[in-house]
Order: sequence, then structure tokens, then C-alpha cells
Amino acid sequence: MTYCLAIRLDAGLVLASDSRTSAGVDDLNIYSKMHRFDTAGDRVIALLSSGNLATTQAVIKRIERDLGDASADTNLDQLAHLDEVARYVGEISAQIQNDFSGQAEQNAGLMQAFFILAGQIRGEAHDAFLIYPQGNYIAVSRNKPFLQIGETKYGKPILDRIIDAGISLERAGRCAIISMDASMRSNLSVGPPIELLIYRADSFEVERRCRFDQDDAYLQSLSRAWADGLDRLFLELPRFPWEA
Amino acid sequence: MTYCLAIRLDAGLVLASDSRTSAGVDDLNIYSKMHRFDTAGDRVIALLSSGNLATTQAVIKRIERDLGDASADTNLDQLAHLDEVARYVGEISAQIQNDFSGQAEQNAGLMQAFFILAGQIRGEAHDAFLIYPQGNYIAVSRNKPFLQIGETKYGKPILDRIIDAGISLERAGRCAIISMDASMRSNLSVGPPIELLIYRADSFEVERRCRFDQDDAYLQSLSRAWADGLDRLFLELPRFPWEA
Repeated sequence: MTYCLAIRLDAGLVLASDSRTSAGVDDLNIYSKMHRFDTAGDRVIALLSSGNLATTQAVIKRIERDLGDASADTNLDQLAHLDEVARYVGEISAQIQNDFSGQAEQNAGLMQAFFILAGQIRGEAHDAFLIYPQGNYIAVSRNKPFLQIGETKYGKPILDRIIDAGISLERAGRCAIISMDASMRSNLSVGPPIELLIYRADSFEVERRCRFDQDDAYLQSLSRAWADGLDRLFLELPRFPWEA
Repeated sequence: MTYCLAIRLDAGLVLASDSRTSAGVDDLNIYSKMHRFDTAGDRVIALLSSGNLATTQAVIKRIERDLGDASADTNLDQLAHLDEVARYVGEISAQIQNDFSGQAEQNAGLMQAFFILAGQIRGEAHDAFLIYPQGNYIAVSRNKPFLQIGETKYGKPILDRIIDAGISLERAGRCAIISMDASMRSNLSVGPPIELLIYRADSFEVERRCRFDQDDAYLQSLSRAWADGLDRLFLELPRFPWEA
């Protein structure tokens, strides 16, 4: 399993991903699911991936190869709009799933991959897209300005409460980590290290990219402050009417 | 959708359920999913139900009919152990699903129902069981002393953090409502009224049974205190190392 999320704020973008892959409980591994491309100076582009690891790796490789290949039809640096990049990634993903599935329709589900594309190309606003296995995609909404892929449910309630397009990048970053922490506690197949990327709108460079291992001092202090705070909050909740 | 949960504490049992049923977004309704049986004085038995509404209603009717039918093979009052009651309910449920599915195997999944059975029969400890559509069942564990059916994921993180067998019935009751509140916010097909049942071990009578409508003053005060508390807690979280 996997858990990745992207938040689009007025102030910029916050991306987070876990790093656990599992091909069965006896085959756990650590792979980064956050991919950044050293693209032209007029753009910052990152991809988060979930689903079949062979598919996601093949998609990333293909994107990288196209960047260095003058004979490629197009590449990440040449597309003028972020939604065109979403389409480009979606087409590659759908094609690779199709290649691997071969003749067997029942394989198609196994090869599926989901992506979140987030970034900014000069001349337009920063944005984020969720790319489905079929290659189609949706943009994040302003009302619910976050996208999730993988094990999305455990971490959603805190996003629903805290995330608003107007909050600061740092507040959203803390919320992303708390959302990740909740998912890791409730589903053992979501695991550290947690990666976090913060992009300030119109800066055209990544402001922060961090990797928090399980024993990272900040991650632990945040997790403990949150757990202790919830305990305290619970003590202060209004008593039932019949309680003394 | 549905969300029901049962918590087994050293001090007793806490049960909670939502009341929304949906046969499509244009066919929402309110039905109680918490069923209590006015059984013999030596036992308290409650059932929470999720899944196909026709199946769950037929199961409840059959249990009630058996109670008043001297010719029935057995009934809720005659069984000596709570796990036998789980088996009895499971057999009825599996049989009704089978009856309704008819010859068509593809109907079987549509008819599925899940139950949580919770209560106490004199001579043994209070307990809770999750009954699967196939009729088999599991008891709640001591390490993770709660069971959930329906839309279980959104409400699980707060249970994972707060619920411990040693806490008070009231604290667990508040946690159950918060868990329900999180599920209602994240999934519109979980909805009020919320029902809550509190049973103190060895009392052989239900201590509290409440029904909280959306505009219930206590439910609103709890929900607001929780939301405000989370906002405050977020402000107090440790800042990233690079923040001033």
C-alpha cells in the first residue's frame, strides 16, 4: 500500500508521501514515491505515485528518457501547460499498463497505477492533478484543495478539518504529516520514511524537500505533541448531561 | 452506507450507530441500525447491523419471531452463551441471504449483511462479536477492544489513539461520537441521528440509550469543542526547524 497527498494552497503546494511498498507481508521494501524532475527553469514538476511498482517505475524511466532524447515526440520541458503534462503522463501510464497486461484482461487491474502531478509552469498558476490508470485526470478543486492516492481514508478526516486554501504552507505541511501519521498507525502497509515537499507559488524552485525517518527528532516531537494534545483535548470535552 | 461500532471495556460496553440508509443518492432514508431485545432478566443483548437493509430487517424479524414462538428450535433467551447467540444470528443471516439470492450467484454479494453482537449473559463476561455474511464470527480482541462495520476507516484513527480496555464508559462514549462525527464529515452516506448505548458490566440492564439528532445540543457542543480543540492544538504543534 501507499499513501500520497498533494495540497494546493493560495501560497503554493505541499506534497507528502510514504515510502513502504509491499508485494505481500513477507516482501516489504522502501521506495521513494515522490519524483521530481530537474526540468527547465520555467517550471517545477513533481509526481507522486501509487499502485503497481513496475508500472510506476517504468513511467518515471520513460519520462526521464524522453527528457534526454531529442527524437522524443515531446517531453516534460516542452509542454506549455500543466494539464498537457498530466495528459502526457497519463498516456505513458496507460500504454505501459497495456503493454504489461498483454492479452490477459484479468492482468489489467494488477498493473494499475495512480499519479498525482503537481507543480507550476511559468505563465500559469500552480496546480495539481490526479491521473487515473486509464490516463484521464482531474484537477484539484478549490473547495477541497487536496488530492490523495493509495490508502486515502484514514488520513482524510484531519485534512477535511484543517485544510483550507488560505492557510500557510507550514501549517499544511504539519497537517500532511499528521495525516500520514494517522495512516501509518491504522495501516501497517503505510510506512516511513515520510517525504515532504514545499513549493512557494511563483518561486520556480522547491523551497523545502525533507525526508523524515521513523526516529527523526522532529517527526517524533510532532507525533508526540499531537498524541498528547488529543489526550488533553479528550479530557476537556463536554461531559454527557448525566455526568456529575 | 453505514457506520456502527462496539467497544468492550473492562467497565462494560459502548455501542454506537448512524442511521442513514442509501439505495442510491436519490434514495436516502433513516433507519435505526441498533437493535435491542427485551430478553430474559439474565441477559442484555444488542445487535448492530450494516449491509443490505432487506436482509438485516429479515434477520431482526426472524429473531423476534423466534422469541415469541414456542415451537422454534431455539431463541435468544434459551442460548446459554453469547458465542452461541452469535452462531444463531449468523446462521439466520446466511440462510436469509441464500434464500434471497436464489439461483443467481451474482446476487449473493448484494444481499450481504454484517452484524455486531454485544451483550452479557449471566455466568460469563460481557463480550462483543463481529458476524460475517457467511455466518462465521470473531470475538473482539483485548489489544484492540473495538469492532466496526460499514464505513470503518474514517473513524478508526481516533479509536486507535484513545480506546483502551481500561478507560471509562463515558470517555469511550465520547470517543465513539467523535469517531462517528469524523465519518459523517468524510462520507455523506453516514448520517444522523447517532444512537449510543452504554452498558455497565454485570448490571444486566442498559445504563443509557441516547439518540442524538443533528441539532442535538450536546452533539453540537461536543462537535464544536472537538473542532475548536483541534484548531488550537494545531496552533501549538512544534514548528518546523527552519521556521522562525
